[in-house]
Amino acid sequence: MSQTNKVRLGIIGMGNMGSSHLRFYLEDELPEITVTAVADIDPERLEWAKEECPLILTFESADALINSGEVDAVIIATPHYFHPEIAIKAMKAGIHVMCEKPAGVYTKQVKEMNEVAKNSNTVFAIMFNQRTNCLYKKAHELVNSGEFGELKRVNWIITDWFRTQRYYDSGGWRATWSGEGGGVLLNQCPHNLDLWQWICGMPVKIFAVCHEGKWHDIEVEDDVMIYAEYENGATGSFVTTTGDFPGTNRLEITLDRAKLICENGTLTVNELEKNTTEFSKNSSQGFGRIKYKTYEAELDGENPQHTGVLNAFAAAVLRGEPLIAKGEEGINGLTISNAAFLSSWLGKTIDIPFDDELFYNELQKKIENSDIKKNVVSSVQEDMSSTY
Amino acid sequence: MSQTNKVRLGIIGMGNMGSSHLRFYLEDELPEITVTAVADIDPERLEWAKEECPLILTFESADALINSGEVDAVIIATPHYFHPEIAIKAMKAGIHVMCEKPAGVYTKQVKEMNEVAKNSNTVFAIMFNQRTNCLYKKAHELVNSGEFGELKRVNWIITDWFRTQRYYDSGGWRATWSGEGGGVLLNQCPHNLDLWQWICGMPVKIFAVCHEGKWHDIEVEDDVMIYAEYENGATGSFVTTTGDFPGTNRLEITLDRAKLICENGTLTVNELEKNTTEFSKNSSQGFGRIKYKTYEAELDGENPQHTGVLNAFAAAVLRGEPLIAKGEEGINGLTISNAAFLSSWLGKTIDIPFDDELFYNELQKKIENSDIKKNVVSSVQEDMSSTY
Repeated sequence: MSQTNKVRLGIIGMGNMGSSHLRFYLEDELPEITVTAVADIDPERLEWAKEECPLILTFESADALINSGEVDAVIIATPHYFHPEIAIKAMKAGIHVMCEKPAGVYTKQVKEMNEVAKNSNTVFAIMFNQRTNCLYKKAHELVNSGEFGELKRVNWIITDWFRTQRYYDSGGWRATWSGEGGGVLLNQCPHNLDLWQWICGMPVKIFAVCHEGKWHDIEVEDDVMIYAEYENGATGSFVTTTGDFPGTNRLEITLDRAKLICENGTLTVNELEKNTTEFSKNSSQGFGRIKYKTYEAELDGENPQHTGVLNAFAAAVLRGEPLIAKGEEGINGLTISNAAFLSSWLGKTIDIPFDDELFYNELQKKIENSDIKKNVVSSVQEDMSSTY
Repeated sequence: MSQTNKVRLGIIGMGNMGSSHLRFYLEDELPEITVTAVADIDPERLEWAKEECPLILTFESADALINSGEVDAVIIATPHYFHPEIAIKAMKAGIHVMCEKPAGVYTKQVKEMNEVAKNSNTVFAIMFNQRTNCLYKKAHELVNSGEFGELKRVNWIITDWFRTQRYYDSGGWRATWSGEGGGVLLNQCPHNLDLWQWICGMPVKIFAVCHEGKWHDIEVEDDVMIYAEYENGATGSFVTTTGDFPGTNRLEITLDRAKLICENGTLTVNELEKNTTEFSKNSSQGFGRIKYKTYEAELDGENPQHTGVLNAFAAAVLRGEPLIAKGEEGINGLTISNAAFLSSWLGKTIDIPFDDELFYNELQKKIENSDIKKNVVSSVQEDMSSTY
């Protein structure tokens, strides 16, 4: 730990997200963090960082940064495939880790990362910044308090991830099996998949149809429908795409004694006087109705996003305070997306846990046939502030 | 035709719906129809009809009514399995037919009915009264005008069909494979399935999970998720149940240049300045946005429901005016529900058209294992006015 009692943070990967994290620091939003170092394989990105922050140390590899002795913690903001590999190296070197989402591309690799985390004394966190959104925090709280009974159904239409062809052309690795390992489920939806499992729990069965290159000239999926089943028999649907505009973000959760709807920044609660299951069993009327009241849940209005997650991470490193999301939980959303791919590729329903090796092998086939785009426009740094 | 230039109508089946139709007549809502006869196998129901309408003729069988010479047309409101059989008899006897929904239980049987209709000179209609709802009429018009481009996606959450156990116990044939041939898809959803195909066209592929007896002590499905694919690649999801309260009825349709949402009696239009597909291809911004305006579609406020369908039927018989829904179109929604059953029973995606014989054989297996409920409370006539 540095003498000033701040966490000395290294940022690995100076792409879109890594640059954003550096900006949060430069804008004084991270009171307990000093960004001491950055690493990237692209010298231009290091130069950019140096211009923004002249005192910063720059490294041409993650290894060099991790072993520099200049950082207590790292944030990993590289392409997805490298997340577990770098996290493992850092944790083995006693460096705390904040991993960008997704945790990795395939569960087999992420399990190894989680195994190392279990046996290390470092803090391991993942950037699920959407968990800081008071809307989802409240939904998580209401569902998990149990006050409204068991989950019956969840439908999430999350189609407000519109991207143009230009977006996909902004990097040769983008939207390829070899470079990114997936499309909307791996790049845009990790937050939604995490929130889904955070609020409703993990499903035990997945059927999905992932349409690859449907709305864009890309290899990976840009249109997905997932059907899920839970241990208690509850069901879920999840619809996403980067092809629709204006999209929808409507999360509807039916519990035995309430229906919740998250949409347009509000959480509407329909609270029943009685449990549906009991009423249905005992009513003397075929078309019975249960009395209920409809109201907006009170939200605390907070939504600190990335800086909230980073500040909680620093507090965890410095004082053992709780994280927003433990690194080990990154595997949950990834398990759903891997299962969705597997279901779509094999055309059948997948039980969770599924065979990690089978998924890995199927992914390799995709990678072997992957065709990293040759004619791409030069890498662009777009404003990512609204894209998390 | 009777001398007063009204259609002499016979109602076959004096259950819930048949009784409602008689009431429409008694309440003077059918100016060009005279209900001259009713048929039911239950003498008590015939007695009830006689009390309500002393001049009415009563018959103990559909055959006797059809061959009585006292009717120009019939409305078939028997249990589902009998619809095609009775319709065929009536049309062969030169009697016009209004068939209650669903057209039948399995497409093989309905195809025979449609074949007879093709070769007959009678008017053949089906009671898709929801097509008269100005909300869906407008959605049909907007989608089919083509002004907003091609269909991309449709999501219908239609879970406001809550029924208690008491409802299912109200008749021994109810919610059994042998008596009714299906649950929520056959009894509650035929309207929604018809509207779905009427507005969006017929899918070419169906995957579905139909949960049988999930929320009630019944044999048939009361919880369903359908995934659909269209010829142009568009996709759809359809979620329904009789187990949720308060349910949802939210139909979202994404076109290339608009998103429509039917909910709470309004049709919200998000109209884009440009087609999404073209914009996505040509935009110079990765996170481009298309300008759009949001407004409520103007509706004519009309919603004549059953009486609208019956009066159009009379006008078709008397003057050849257009029907609300041609009888032959009944097979479309049924094709979707049959495909959904088949998909769920076989655990795989079903191409449309599917093998009618295969479905019929699978249905027979269900019927063979069917267990008509022994201990049911006596048949009740509930107010059906809000149930279509």
